[in-house]
Amino acid sequence: MDSVDRLLASARAAPYGHLLPATDDMFRSVALEVEAHMSNYDASHDFHHILRVLALSLRILESEYESTIDKDRFNPTVVILSALLHDVNDKKYLPPAVDGHQTSKVTLVLEQAGASRTLVASVEEVVNHVSYSTEIKDPSKVQGVLQIHPELAVVQDADRIDAIGAIGIGRTFTFTGAKLQGASMQNSREHIDEKLERLEGMMKTNTGKKMARERTERLTVFKKWWDEETMLVAV
Amino acid sequence: MDSVDRLLASARAAPYGHLLPATDDMFRSVALEVEAHMSNYDASHDFHHILRVLALSLRILESEYESTIDKDRFNPTVVILSALLHDVNDKKYLPPAVDGHQTSKVTLVLEQAGASRTLVASVEEVVNHVSYSTEIKDPSKVQGVLQIHPELAVVQDADRIDAIGAIGIGRTFTFTGAKLQGASMQNSREHIDEKLERLEGMMKTNTGKKMARERTERLTVFKKWWDEETMLVAV
Repeated sequence: MDSVDRLLASARAAPYGHLLPATDDMFRSVALEVEAHMSNYDASHDFHHILRVLALSLRILESEYESTIDKDRFNPTVVILSALLHDVNDKKYLPPAVDGHQTSKVTLVLEQAGASRTLVASVEEVVNHVSYSTEIKDPSKVQGVLQIHPELAVVQDADRIDAIGAIGIGRTFTFTGAKLQGASMQNSREHIDEKLERLEGMMKTNTGKKMARERTERLTVFKKWWDEETMLVAV
Repeated sequence: MDSVDRLLASARAAPYGHLLPATDDMFRSVALEVEAHMSNYDASHDFHHILRVLALSLRILESEYESTIDKDRFNPTVVILSALLHDVNDKKYLPPAVDGHQTSKVTLVLEQAGASRTLVASVEEVVNHVSYSTEIKDPSKVQGVLQIHPELAVVQDADRIDAIGAIGIGRTFTFTGAKLQGASMQNSREHIDEKLERLEGMMKTNTGKKMARERTERLTVFKKWWDEETMLVAV
């Protein structure tokens, strides 16, 4: 939890820090639950991914805060909780059975941490609209949620930045190794074309757009290397 | 088997082609067995890896043949069979039980394909000394084998070239995902320092040295990207 504490301290020290609640108890309680939950996942979606998305979210939040006059636009509490919880309802990984109810794991963790009903509702809306496939299926729905919960833009951009660049390359191969029995590494190579290179065009914040540019260039360089190296076999 | 046939045709068309046996039956029989065997492995050590090592071996063989006056130095049959079989006795993956005897799978496959006793002995010596850990444990032993079986230099260089560059990056993350339960992706990042960047200095052929240079530079670029991207979390 040292990394979480360091990131929370950096959030408090940021220009938007005064918008945070008085103590970190709620964040730390959620982070502990998320850390336990993510230990069921493979290395492409582990707690390190959550920490990177939290760090990226804070970076975006700070940069957007500084460049806008609308200082209340993003609620930092919603951003932090949504970054921490954004993969907990992930459909790619069946969540362990929670109880007989239809209550989501995200809501249970937030209630246990003492979050208000309004806060739970906001975070649920954000985390349930972060995913790429959700947006591809119904882009206008995501646009609608963004109007009410602009924090979605921050967490979504952060999650997508962690899917590209060197880390994105590492994650796609790790995922193929861990979850796609029988698939070849070419599957990850094609994933770069089919999804990863499209993420830059879907960025919602200016900061996200800038960060995505450099990391997408890295994907392009890597693809060139890969294609050249695999060409040898095609004689 | 289309790729195997294409690679064998390219070997026949190469300047050393006249040193090959009259038909490809033995090679094809071995390749079929290897393809079945590798289907037990994960995507970092699958039949595509074997095909790339075969293609790289042929590339090295041709280039070394052209630049030497000692045209009989490498036996292309030993090179091709050793490239195909180099991972079949791999200790990282326990080979499926073969029979009650101590006969290795490599020998069984070669005997079944009609290889002579001398050929079986040569290929066994080569494949059992390809691995990095074998060389680190006893470099002088590998030097001794190289004196008697120079083909080891070709297959060893080819196998190590496939461990670096973009493909090497893909393979180390795929391996972490598939085989290292509970390990984080940082494990693959450290593997670049601990092993992959050292391979260039262990190349045995001039062609291997040249190819390793460019692919090692790719590892260095990737590391820089990775370290910069993960630095964000360290605030």
